Amino acid sequence: MFSFRVLKSDGSARLGELVTPHGVIKTPVFMPVGTQGTVKAMIPSLLEEVGAQIILGNTYHLYLRPGVEVVEGAGGLHRFIGWHKPILTDSGGFQVFSLSRERNDKRSSVKVLEEGVEFKDHLSGDRHFFTPEKVVQIEEALGADIIMPLDVCIEYPTTYARAKEAVELTIRWLDRSIRVKRREDQVLFAIVQGSVYEDLRLESAYMSMERDLFGYAIGGLSVGEPKEEMYRITRVVCSVLPWDKPRYLMGVGLPEDIVEAVASGVDMFDCVAPTRMARTGTLFTSQGRINIKSKIYEKDYDPPDPNCDCYTCSNFSRAYLRHLYKAEEISAYILNTIHNLRFYHRLMEDIRRSIEESRFEEFRKNFLRSWLRTSY
Amino acid sequence: MFSFRVLKSDGSARLGELVTPHGVIKTPVFMPVGTQGTVKAMIPSLLEEVGAQIILGNTYHLYLRPGVEVVEGAGGLHRFIGWHKPILTDSGGFQVFSLSRERNDKRSSVKVLEEGVEFKDHLSGDRHFFTPEKVVQIEEALGADIIMPLDVCIEYPTTYARAKEAVELTIRWLDRSIRVKRREDQVLFAIVQGSVYEDLRLESAYMSMERDLFGYAIGGLSVGEPKEEMYRITRVVCSVLPWDKPRYLMGVGLPEDIVEAVASGVDMFDCVAPTRMARTGTLFTSQGRINIKSKIYEKDYDPPDPNCDCYTCSNFSRAYLRHLYKAEEISAYILNTIHNLRFYHRLMEDIRRSIEESRFEEFRKNFLRSWLRTSY
Repeated sequence: MFSFRVLKSDGSARLGELVTPHGVIKTPVFMPVGTQGTVKAMIPSLLEEVGAQIILGNTYHLYLRPGVEVVEGAGGLHRFIGWHKPILTDSGGFQVFSLSRERNDKRSSVKVLEEGVEFKDHLSGDRHFFTPEKVVQIEEALGADIIMPLDVCIEYPTTYARAKEAVELTIRWLDRSIRVKRREDQVLFAIVQGSVYEDLRLESAYMSMERDLFGYAIGGLSVGEPKEEMYRITRVVCSVLPWDKPRYLMGVGLPEDIVEAVASGVDMFDCVAPTRMARTGTLFTSQGRINIKSKIYEKDYDPPDPNCDCYTCSNFSRAYLRHLYKAEEISAYILNTIHNLRFYHRLMEDIRRSIEESRFEEFRKNFLRSWLRTSY
Repeated sequence: MFSFRVLKSDGSARLGELVTPHGVIKTPVFMPVGTQGTVKAMIPSLLEEVGAQIILGNTYHLYLRPGVEVVEGAGGLHRFIGWHKPILTDSGGFQVFSLSRERNDKRSSVKVLEEGVEFKDHLSGDRHFFTPEKVVQIEEALGADIIMPLDVCIEYPTTYARAKEAVELTIRWLDRSIRVKRREDQVLFAIVQGSVYEDLRLESAYMSMERDLFGYAIGGLSVGEPKEEMYRITRVVCSVLPWDKPRYLMGVGLPEDIVEAVASGVDMFDCVAPTRMARTGTLFTSQGRINIKSKIYEKDYDPPDPNCDCYTCSNFSRAYLRHLYKAEEISAYILNTIHNLRFYHRLMEDIRRSIEESRFEEFRKNFLRSWLRTSY
């Protein structure tokens, strides 16, 4: 029902194929984030058009709203949201820590116990208690193809001692997750933690590997650390992960981060950047990042990206997108999101092709040179 | 380049064909409203999917934002907004009167002079002066297939004397509009005014007909008068309009209004109801109007309308739409709008088929009986 194969490698970069009950995923893959049961400003038909192979669901958000029962009653998340390709649900660990913190303005209301994590939700402020067991049960009810165990996401920067505790508790929670997991049409990944401490990351990776999971995620990155730290930790962790298992760098990232992480051997990515930035008017283009709100586009009748094959670039001008954005039209968010997601998916297609053709290193150099020069 | 033919009639209801440079329109037709250069929460590909044959643009809104120059620079409205089927632009008359009034809280800032109308816009509050000549020039720059002349839209209720003045000034403005009109790939309609006074409506209709326009619109209805008044005036005006010219009932209406007006001989309609109500969660269905926000739909896994063939009803449940709406997801507005517009367009298809098959009166009775019983 599930399998993963590395079809070809080029340096540490890998071209792979991940088989799930809802379809085959070509890796490296980017997974659009469908926080509350929808990728924001998208509908499934448009998602398929941009090339999405798999999307994310957020356990934390779906648990709060509409609630697990509602999704279960529909026959699971795929049927509820009308997306019949693969889905991955995260455990909610990241949201528990980050959103509860936000709500409570520095004084964190998150209490981490051996048993689980107590938190106030960001909507009503009600108290909840997540245990690793409960999270697996929720994810089994949601029914995604790939599920993540509850983990301890600590802030950056943090002390070595706190990071070590988080690594150890994350592993104990992983064991409890493995123990209660029942469904055979879902696979569980482990999440490697350890902040920016290499020895903790390695310890976390080795302990995870001893549990022999279907795949391995790298968590706790892209949380404020310098990019070089993110790249370094990704390299170190990937260097010890089993070659024949998928690797997922959680919450990453910008195009340059993805290209760098593929170079280290990462297969799967998710990030809100393309969708969120679309809604603030930032477009990713072959000529770098542009902000469509700018006055300079008022009478610019070129497509947002002349080298893009998306619906938006095939039919509309920068001037029109700017107008829609200034007029606060919903279609601005739709068209910008189509474009940004297509940019990300075409980037992944280009990456896969370059690995296939054994020229990933050349692709990476050329892409980064041009992208970094034009975007920053 | 332009023609209109009544292909068949059934009582006063007519099946017609309106040929324009951007395509052939089957009438009776509903025209979705694209206020600011986009139908709200839609993109052209989705509009085509629901069956839209022609959309509206608002001269008032486009003049203010993005401005005529920007649209002209793109090569006209069709190219600017990426909609290559027919477009109709209204003259802005209605907006000048209604939006300026709104902004200024009863004390109207609209000054109607023989020369034209002075108003403050609803965005910046800047003063503007629209003359019939200026409006035609703007509409020629926008380049819609069908254009409307500046008219005087008075409030309801109003006195006979005020309504009469408005009728007469509207005709003098029509003459000035005809005089400056240049483009041959656009046709101008006349607008019949006269509030709820039958003799004024007839006077307005006859004076308009003397000018021999391509089509005739009925303006100043659906502005607060009882429905029976609207139906009565529509019947009276249609009874004298030339048989071989298209008739457009402006700003109307709800499904029952459309069916009644078709029965009186109207060919064209526009209304913000399906799109605006979609964004507040009201769905038009074969079982009447429903509000998707309602708690009763929390675990209702039926499609919004089991008899609907739209993308939304083919793929999603009431429970899912309710969830998206409660979560304030943009996709809620997209999916609701797709459904409501498809409902309207299928209604028009049903109307056309029933005229074709000489059973419109039966259709009308059945539709109204079921629709009114379930919707109110």
